[in-house]
Amino acid sequence: MFILKDLKKKNEEISNLTLSQVELRKENREREIAFSASMMESGAGNIGPFTTDITLTYRNVFTNIGNAYNPVTGIFTAPLTGAYMFRITVFGHGGTPATAGIFKNGKQMVTADGNQVQGVLNSSNGVVLILEVGDVVYVRLWTGSRTHDSQNNHNTFSGFLLFPLT
Amino acid sequence: MFILKDLKKKNEEISNLTLSQVELRKENREREIAFSASMMESGAGNIGPFTTDITLTYRNVFTNIGNAYNPVTGIFTAPLTGAYMFRITVFGHGGTPATAGIFKNGKQMVTADGNQVQGVLNSSNGVVLILEVGDVVYVRLWTGSRTHDSQNNHNTFSGFLLFPLT
Amino acid sequence: MFILKDLKKKNEEISNLTLSQVELRKENREREIAFSASMMESGAGNIGPFTTDITLTYRNVFTNIGNAYNPVTGIFTAPLTGAYMFRITVFGHGGTPATAGIFKNGKQMVTADGNQVQGVLNSSNGVVLILEVGDVVYVRLWTGSRTHDSQNNHNTFSGFLLFPLT
Repeated sequence: MFILKDLKKKNEEISNLTLSQVELRKENREREIAFSASMMESGAGNIGPFTTDITLTYRNVFTNIGNAYNPVTGIFTAPLTGAYMFRITVFGHGGTPATAGIFKNGKQMVTADGNQVQGVLNSSNGVVLILEVGDVVYVRLWTGSRTHDSQNNHNTFSGFLLFPLT
Repeated sequence: MFILKDLKKKNEEISNLTLSQVELRKENREREIAFSASMMESGAGNIGPFTTDITLTYRNVFTNIGNAYNPVTGIFTAPLTGAYMFRITVFGHGGTPATAGIFKNGKQMVTADGNQVQGVLNSSNGVVLILEVGDVVYVRLWTGSRTHDSQNNHNTFSGFLLFPLT
Repeated sequence: MFILKDLKKKNEEISNLTLSQVELRKENREREIAFSASMMESGAGNIGPFTTDITLTYRNVFTNIGNAYNPVTGIFTAPLTGAYMFRITVFGHGGTPATAGIFKNGKQMVTADGNQVQGVLNSSNGVVLILEVGDVVYVRLWTGSRTHDSQNNHNTFSGFLLFPLT
């Protein structure tokens, strides 16, 4: 009797351990969120300047694991709550500012801003953001700004999950 | 007798497995170290130039999971031994250099350095450092340098644990 | 009989669980891939301009966990299939372009490109790449470009595994 009861308890313990390991593995799989894209699939040219700010669409996708980044809209949508790292590089020709910001849910977080008389200029910035499921992150070119790109992929937008939060 | 002895051994094995899983989960929780901050909580203006180099305080905190970054002192203190990624963006107006370095325990690791006659300029740099518990990382503005910021958050300091080391 | 058979089954289950945990720990250990290096171990000076593009060797190693980066060749070789983050900062003096690209297996992925008449300039870029075992990533200075470095470590090349892919 004692032995049978003990065996039943063992069964439960093993069952819980197995479940817990499956959860750990699933957790690891769900963490696989990373994207990286540059602006142009083909050709070369300027974007802007415009009389309003616009969301930039980075169409040349290097990586999009988890499919959280949409290259048609330029918008990253958080598939799970967690801490995410984002970075951008903005490139342009002198004479017109080349300025863009990383936005979260309609609010600018950080700016990459450059302006010089001649030559070419490159600005970068990055930020770690806490996102909840469905929060959106994207890049907006400022009014009056101009960015240039080509098959050299000067302009990039990248992001990845650092860790989920519960 | 044999069965009872075997059951006792099972008990120990299950107990070890459970302990080991608790450790794994704790390890995952302790890995949650990430911060990101920009310079100003409100307003806009220059910092510098000064006749000495100073530690920059990034007061506008986006993220500070693990509370390892102190926005009053500008100093990140490693809570556990591991490999950490850090990055900065430094922004300024032309005519005066905008240069700062990422320091570890009093020694400059990498520099973000820009200087142009007119316009605005943006420099970034990043580094992966191995830190031991209590090691400090912070950003110092060079003597004679000037940085500018506003609610657009041009200047940022971010860091996160890549993985612990034992 | 029933009890003995059940005990044998328990044995197998515990054995599988232990194996699975060992695998998880091994998986964590193998994930520890991160490097970061700047250009010069000592002194200061220019690299370039040359009449061809060259692979830059970042010889001053801050971090090289997993030994996947070779400071003699400047080449990172992926030890396992996964998603990796890479970033560079390129620094130079005005008057000559300071332009370099992150390459994967002979193909340029992204570019850090700056050029201004006077002063000093700093360009960065980054990208998340999916690599298979043996894929190589490195940085090439463009033909006609010039980079400058010193013990201030302006030029850096860093990378780290985000997560393995199977």
